Amino acid sequence: MSFSADDHRFMARAIELARKGRFTTSPNPNVGAVLVKSGQVVGEGYHHQAGGPHAEVVALQQAAEQARGADCYVTLEPCSHYGRTPPCAEALIQAGVRRVVMAMQDPNPQVAGRGAALLQAAGIKVQSGLMAASARALNPGFLTRMEQQRPFVRLKLAASLDGKTALNNGASQWITSKEARADVQLQRAQSCAVLSTAETVLRDDARLSLRPEQALSPINPLQNGSYRQPTRLVLDRRQRLTGNEALFAQPGKLVLVYPEGCTQQAPAGAELLHAPCTQEQFDLPALMQLLAQQHINTLWVEAGARLAGSLLQASLVDEFWLYQAPKILGHQARGLVHLTELTNVNDAIALSWQDIRQLGPDLRFIATLHGRG
Amino acid sequence: MSFSADDHRFMARAIELARKGRFTTSPNPNVGAVLVKSGQVVGEGYHHQAGGPHAEVVALQQAAEQARGADCYVTLEPCSHYGRTPPCAEALIQAGVRRVVMAMQDPNPQVAGRGAALLQAAGIKVQSGLMAASARALNPGFLTRMEQQRPFVRLKLAASLDGKTALNNGASQWITSKEARADVQLQRAQSCAVLSTAETVLRDDARLSLRPEQALSPINPLQNGSYRQPTRLVLDRRQRLTGNEALFAQPGKLVLVYPEGCTQQAPAGAELLHAPCTQEQFDLPALMQLLAQQHINTLWVEAGARLAGSLLQASLVDEFWLYQAPKILGHQARGLVHLTELTNVNDAIALSWQDIRQLGPDLRFIATLHGRG
Repeated sequence: MSFSADDHRFMARAIELARKGRFTTSPNPNVGAVLVKSGQVVGEGYHHQAGGPHAEVVALQQAAEQARGADCYVTLEPCSHYGRTPPCAEALIQAGVRRVVMAMQDPNPQVAGRGAALLQAAGIKVQSGLMAASARALNPGFLTRMEQQRPFVRLKLAASLDGKTALNNGASQWITSKEARADVQLQRAQSCAVLSTAETVLRDDARLSLRPEQALSPINPLQNGSYRQPTRLVLDRRQRLTGNEALFAQPGKLVLVYPEGCTQQAPAGAELLHAPCTQEQFDLPALMQLLAQQHINTLWVEAGARLAGSLLQASLVDEFWLYQAPKILGHQARGLVHLTELTNVNDAIALSWQDIRQLGPDLRFIATLHGRG
Repeated sequence: MSFSADDHRFMARAIELARKGRFTTSPNPNVGAVLVKSGQVVGEGYHHQAGGPHAEVVALQQAAEQARGADCYVTLEPCSHYGRTPPCAEALIQAGVRRVVMAMQDPNPQVAGRGAALLQAAGIKVQSGLMAASARALNPGFLTRMEQQRPFVRLKLAASLDGKTALNNGASQWITSKEARADVQLQRAQSCAVLSTAETVLRDDARLSLRPEQALSPINPLQNGSYRQPTRLVLDRRQRLTGNEALFAQPGKLVLVYPEGCTQQAPAGAELLHAPCTQEQFDLPALMQLLAQQHINTLWVEAGARLAGSLLQASLVDEFWLYQAPKILGHQARGLVHLTELTNVNDAIALSWQDIRQLGPDLRFIATLHGRG
């Protein structure tokens, strides 16, 4: 199947539109749509937030009568099921579009080809696969949840050039710059959930919430003008959080993860999630499955060296994010990642750079585990 | 004083020529010269190695009779003293050049303005300061030795992303890539001397010599076709090297540094330098002065976390070079820099990035101490 330069141009616009939803659509995917008639855009839209209209519906409303005989470019296969809104495939058929070009099939088993089939059965020409890689990049979390039944995990760490996250006395404010911390706010704003540990919360009095005014660039609010807060998840194997910590006074949903079978009640202001646990630590693959069942697509991990090491050794890290300050703290300061001792250099956890940029005086590295991503 | 676009163009060429000597001129500075008559280059040259002709003399020989009435662009003030060759100022006067444009004054107290004065006394127009920053960058070592009576110190370290230089069992071959190691060869080739410690030599069986065939890019040989080896300096406070280590079998000068007053003889194949020493370590500022007296302009340090920390804490590092592999070795591996324990994050050793580039899978950082360089 071949696509024209115009096809690429309109799909690129649909992808650009889809990105506008990145702060708000959770747990839905980011989707953009463009309606084109006689080479002119007659309607466009994107999905803004769960419960609100889908991208195709926004574009159809804008196009009104001009939708008849138009081509629809959409970044994800139109849905075929009744969810909180009626199926988009139906709406496209009703509107009389001539052709639907979609970037990729919906991996959601409730859709998965059925949207395309509905359209084709109604005599609409359907083409798929245009700019699929860019469209997939819109929704790493949604796709990972649908395809692997776990969230897409971004492990964030902040350290000095010699890989130290805090002094021996625990002091860590501030190793990285204001700009680096403002970027962290931006990443929290694009994550379904932030994962941390009771240890980190108690040590740093971490709030883990989004403070939009501190973010490196503007964040789109929800329709009601408020900001979507990521769900804050805190592993609290030994029920150490009391409810008096600063994070309980923050907006947004707070979930404490207790071991399965633990009967203790949650402190006021927090919900509970129970996860399988050994004496030493939570069963991380099982926890990830549970989080996927809670509709968490993208998980932003801000914790310490132990959880970082456990996630890396369990191959549960999709992207390793390191904010690195041009400072040296010395051998007595605290290390970046706890691993069981290596005896061969070839057993190191190997990464592949994806992106490196400067943020103020600091650098931000994004890497994948070598051989993945 | 203002310079024309042509002046800039010819001085840029002189700087380009000067760089050709960077593997061979030690302990002399890199210098390039261009002779221009009626807007045409009539002669050019650079200083290739100590004892050989200076840049101006090479250019004058090439220009022959055309030097009369020409303009001479030279990256450093022409010399005025009889060293291993007659003074270049004399040669320029004899040749009848009309004007001399020099990028900077020679900081060598044997010259320091006297070259320019000689030229002016002979009726030659002299201008100075054109592209001075670029000219200074040709000779950081020579300038530091002349101005501060110590070498320009580049501290080289190689580590994983979590700042580890070796596993707990000492294994470190190879954390960084072939490309990174090939760049290290290139830097050894441009250094007057390589400084290491007996500890590093014994642990890694380090040879510290230049293997030109392994270098990242071609290295210019000496006139006789051989390659200039950096002097290898090894701090051996407790006289642990026996003469049987691999570095004794390498080409080039090997100097062991023993404490002042130590009467032990050097193993065959090594010379000795005695330096002030406390019970714990060498007096590093005093050592640097001694090395400057030995005409060492640029010192490339390849050692362990202790010497790195001591040099950093003594503010004796002009450039911090880190080769960083995208690997994680874990908290039990060996740290990058030993420092006395910090209790306040603001006391960290702060660096400023000068250059960051990728070498194979690794990154190479060059930084200066913050507030310097």
